[in-house]
Amino acid sequence: MRRERRSPGNPLRMPTLTERIAAGDRRALATLISRIEKHDPEAPAILGALHERTGRAMVVGITGAPGTGKSTLVAALAGAFRRGTAGHPPRTVGILAVDPTSPFSGGAILGDRIRMRDLAGDEGVFIRSMASRGRLGGLSHATDSAVRALDAAGFETILIETVGVGQDEVDIARQTPTVIVVESPGTGDDIQALKAGILEIADILVVNKADMPGADTTFESLCAMLGLGGGEGDGWKTPVMKTTAATGEGVDALAEAIHRHRAYLRESGEGRRRERERAEADLRERLRERLFERWRQSGRMDLAEMARKVAARECSPEEAVEELLK
Amino acid sequence: MRRERRSPGNPLRMPTLTERIAAGDRRALATLISRIEKHDPEAPAILGALHERTGRAMVVGITGAPGTGKSTLVAALAGAFRRGTAGHPPRTVGILAVDPTSPFSGGAILGDRIRMRDLAGDEGVFIRSMASRGRLGGLSHATDSAVRALDAAGFETILIETVGVGQDEVDIARQTPTVIVVESPGTGDDIQALKAGILEIADILVVNKADMPGADTTFESLCAMLGLGGGEGDGWKTPVMKTTAATGEGVDALAEAIHRHRAYLRESGEGRRRERERAEADLRERLRERLFERWRQSGRMDLAEMARKVAARECSPEEAVEELLK
Repeated sequence: MRRERRSPGNPLRMPTLTERIAAGDRRALATLISRIEKHDPEAPAILGALHERTGRAMVVGITGAPGTGKSTLVAALAGAFRRGTAGHPPRTVGILAVDPTSPFSGGAILGDRIRMRDLAGDEGVFIRSMASRGRLGGLSHATDSAVRALDAAGFETILIETVGVGQDEVDIARQTPTVIVVESPGTGDDIQALKAGILEIADILVVNKADMPGADTTFESLCAMLGLGGGEGDGWKTPVMKTTAATGEGVDALAEAIHRHRAYLRESGEGRRRERERAEADLRERLRERLFERWRQSGRMDLAEMARKVAARECSPEEAVEELLK
Repeated sequence: MRRERRSPGNPLRMPTLTERIAAGDRRALATLISRIEKHDPEAPAILGALHERTGRAMVVGITGAPGTGKSTLVAALAGAFRRGTAGHPPRTVGILAVDPTSPFSGGAILGDRIRMRDLAGDEGVFIRSMASRGRLGGLSHATDSAVRALDAAGFETILIETVGVGQDEVDIARQTPTVIVVESPGTGDDIQALKAGILEIADILVVNKADMPGADTTFESLCAMLGLGGGEGDGWKTPVMKTTAATGEGVDALAEAIHRHRAYLRESGEGRRRERERAEADLRERLRERLFERWRQSGRMDLAEMARKVAARECSPEEAVEELLK
């Protein structure tokens, strides 16, 4: 029974996708995100037109190794934001579940998303999976665009869940004002080793599955590792928190910590600084892509033929690039 | 007691780094890899000069989620290649341990590398850790360059171990003729989900820790998943193999399977085809980088100022790029 809305002033003109998204039309939003994923050439213009409506959402990245219960935690957090917590009223929530390990199939794995079933049917929640499309950097760019779309559509909180522990997570985290790194007790020595690298991107550290044996040990070793990197004085002090997402224990407190971090970003000016940095990195990537496209369309050289020469050891890649740029 | 070698014909001229690497000088090789990691502007010319000496090594990528025992398996595999197996004589081995989760510290985590201690002191083994240097794609490019250096230095087998399960692994795997994906029993449902994406890049699947409970279940579910993707007829059939790296069980058989895959690549022409594809993707990345550098050196526009405008919502990134390209 869906009716097409008509734009004001001209009852005969159908509203554009931009207008429908601005008006909170969920179907229009889903269409735009699909176009973003497919690298539809019209998507950038739509996002450009929506740009002035962005910058209002509270954007949170949730990352960590497989098996830490991230999906359950994201669903529980979404519930906490929807209900509201002691210090903050209810908010609408958009969820992006990003799966960089699925570069060839072209479809994100939805198995774990079943845990988000409780949220289905709530008009104030929008859930979307995003899979990598193979191209280097393609996923973090598409995720960034999807965040902008959700932001423009008026979702007040945006949770980005990433599966995996590679460069993609770091790239996506860099686009995210607030980063939560999730650990769980007893996940083996490899993960212990990973912490050192991942710690540095965390604004909030969470030990999930806090009811499991070993949770206290994990909690204390994380506190100790954070202590080692300390001594900065008056900046944000990364808190370590315990949650049991399956029962909801500690989840409201985590939601409150997210609000606190947002307030810190705003009051310290750090939020604006990070946003400028992100914008610059984004412009650089866009330029790289556009300059290459321009070069290719000039059609002067055959990349495939040059690649054949390199593979046959007729010339080195270093020489090939000089030749191609002539 | 190391003596500097002098180049033939002119006893007074010191040999260049290129000459020393070609002569198998380990210290020269280590120097070159350090320069690659630091993006030393002289590194490309050295690699270019060594290019004609590359293409001889058997290059193998080993990837999989944390906790599967990859490091132990890589060390055991290196031992098997050094000793030689039933069907193949001993070979020299270069190992690159790649850690994309350490983008900020600038140093790879060497904790796990302790397992490779057995190999230390063997002149026929060269071990090196590589950490990400932050820039998107920087790690896979540096890894590719380090492989070329090891190849030119005459290492017959090169094993690349990657920690993590993100886009970096996929990118590094794409540079690798033979990809081994390691699983282990009972690593939780998140990892089950990941398999679907990672399966597709595997030339050989390994269930490591095969002496642990649940190994048969993991083995059978992997076989079943492979069966689903089958029906291709006469191509390479991805084998599923069991190993217990800690005891060496199954490791010689895995080494033999790697030799078989290499023979398949050679005989089917698939190896040459993949190498041309890799060379083309590599040239494309180099061009993107060089074209951007050219644009930047032209110095016409201020990227930082434009980023400020985008962050302040004075213009959209889409408009900013058009402006910058004018």
